[in-house]
Amino acid sequence: MVEDASPQLREVSAALAPHTGRAHIVGITGSPGVGKSTSTSALVTAMRKAGKRVGVLAVDPSSPFSGGALLGDRVRMQDHATDPGVYIRSMASRGHLGGLSWAAPQALRVLDAAGCDVILVETVGVGQSEVEIAGLADTTLVLIAPGMGDGIQAAKAGILEIGDIYVVNKADRDGAPQVRRELRNMIALAERAPDAWKPPIVLTVASKGEGVDEVAAEIANHLEHLSATGELRERRHRRVRSEIEAIALVGVQKRFAGLSGDSRLDSLADGVLEGKNDPFSAADVLIESLSG
Amino acid sequence: MVEDASPQLREVSAALAPHTGRAHIVGITGSPGVGKSTSTSALVTAMRKAGKRVGVLAVDPSSPFSGGALLGDRVRMQDHATDPGVYIRSMASRGHLGGLSWAAPQALRVLDAAGCDVILVETVGVGQSEVEIAGLADTTLVLIAPGMGDGIQAAKAGILEIGDIYVVNKADRDGAPQVRRELRNMIALAERAPDAWKPPIVLTVASKGEGVDEVAAEIANHLEHLSATGELRERRHRRVRSEIEAIALVGVQKRFAGLSGDSRLDSLADGVLEGKNDPFSAADVLIESLSG
Repeated sequence: MVEDASPQLREVSAALAPHTGRAHIVGITGSPGVGKSTSTSALVTAMRKAGKRVGVLAVDPSSPFSGGALLGDRVRMQDHATDPGVYIRSMASRGHLGGLSWAAPQALRVLDAAGCDVILVETVGVGQSEVEIAGLADTTLVLIAPGMGDGIQAAKAGILEIGDIYVVNKADRDGAPQVRRELRNMIALAERAPDAWKPPIVLTVASKGEGVDEVAAEIANHLEHLSATGELRERRHRRVRSEIEAIALVGVQKRFAGLSGDSRLDSLADGVLEGKNDPFSAADVLIESLSG
Repeated sequence: MVEDASPQLREVSAALAPHTGRAHIVGITGSPGVGKSTSTSALVTAMRKAGKRVGVLAVDPSSPFSGGALLGDRVRMQDHATDPGVYIRSMASRGHLGGLSWAAPQALRVLDAAGCDVILVETVGVGQSEVEIAGLADTTLVLIAPGMGDGIQAAKAGILEIGDIYVVNKADRDGAPQVRRELRNMIALAERAPDAWKPPIVLTVASKGEGVDEVAAEIANHLEHLSATGELRERRHRRVRSEIEAIALVGVQKRFAGLSGDSRLDSLADGVLEGKNDPFSAADVLIESLSG
């Protein structure tokens, strides 16, 4: 229903509402090739050992295809395919009205209400979505690997600002200490309040499971910190605000499309195309039509 | 003003409106490493030879930084830095309310009104934005290079569907004939009306300027086809519709934020956080507040 944006989702969402807000949502981001899938799979193993019910939502904002097993990378998740305490789902958002900001929170609500203790949200695609995914999570893991192009320079454009926990994966490779040093410097330079969370750096070799328990422990630490400081509530409040806004904007967009059988927007577009009007004035007319 | 989403942009847009609609907007997409910047620069050279005024808009949806010379790749454009018939601008949209769908059309309007005959829109970042960029253009070039991972398989997720012209760059490398063959098959398999445009495939070595005149000629052919069939008007109409809608949605979003000093959305978010309400009902209340 989420993937199809089914109208029935409204009722389902209302029924689920009282059962949500329990899951710890952990975003996993990083450039392609750092080992996101392998790390996610290893984290699932670690969390299952601790008796937790785990959900995995693999989001691919660049693909129009959704489904449990469509994405190639999901093969790495097959270790967990028969474990009833693990639910894995791939989700695409290309072409979705409202995109990721609409669809992903709804999928998370379903997994949350289904009783997942932790939900790992992993991006399968690349690009700007990384930052968007971080906005969905209580805790954001940023994965880096040595020997990826310009090292941490390459990642600086966006994802390095959003990490609550930094994981240097493939730490058995040359260059791992260098990456850790650069990350340490970066973290040391960032301004933060004295009692604020200081992002830890964990070295892992996810393919061998090395360091993964430590990552799981830091994830738990971060949740504890968020709860103790009240930041959890704040982050979730911000998130729900965005979620409501995204749903409302899609609702407005549908109303725009429905205005006099769509012809309102068409005639406004004609006016702009002919140079008689500018798009801002046309947009004003469109908004006014909503209340009319 | 566009980059800052300045309030004065409204007046400017109104003043520019009668002067827009002349430029041929050409999108240039492709995976990182296929030679987008080099190809863009070579196309500028070819179009300048033909006496055209050329605008280049390099869009990076993953970066928060805008500016004429901030992005490293722009270095390749320095051949044209002193040519008054070429205007080059880098543009970022991360963090922009409304994102690329809001900001890029406004930048294109400015370049259009400034008298550019052709505007090349190149993506600097990666990911889903490719398809978004194609939505901005009259003509979309898809660049592919041999020896990039899985060949054209790798690109299949989205960008292969959107090309009006396919360019196999780095065609002096092994594998170029193979890429051309695969593209040919793909194009042959696609369903299209008998009189529809059939995307040509051009082989280039952009770094040496080889094949670039042919690309420029195909770009001109495509424009002619679009004009002759009335498709140009249709594409632009669709585009202006989206543009008006994007501006209106940002306008609505600003009104949401302004509702009773923002407290409306806050209390709705609290209700959802506490499980008393679901986000869909909250969104309905938010939309109703607009007319209230």
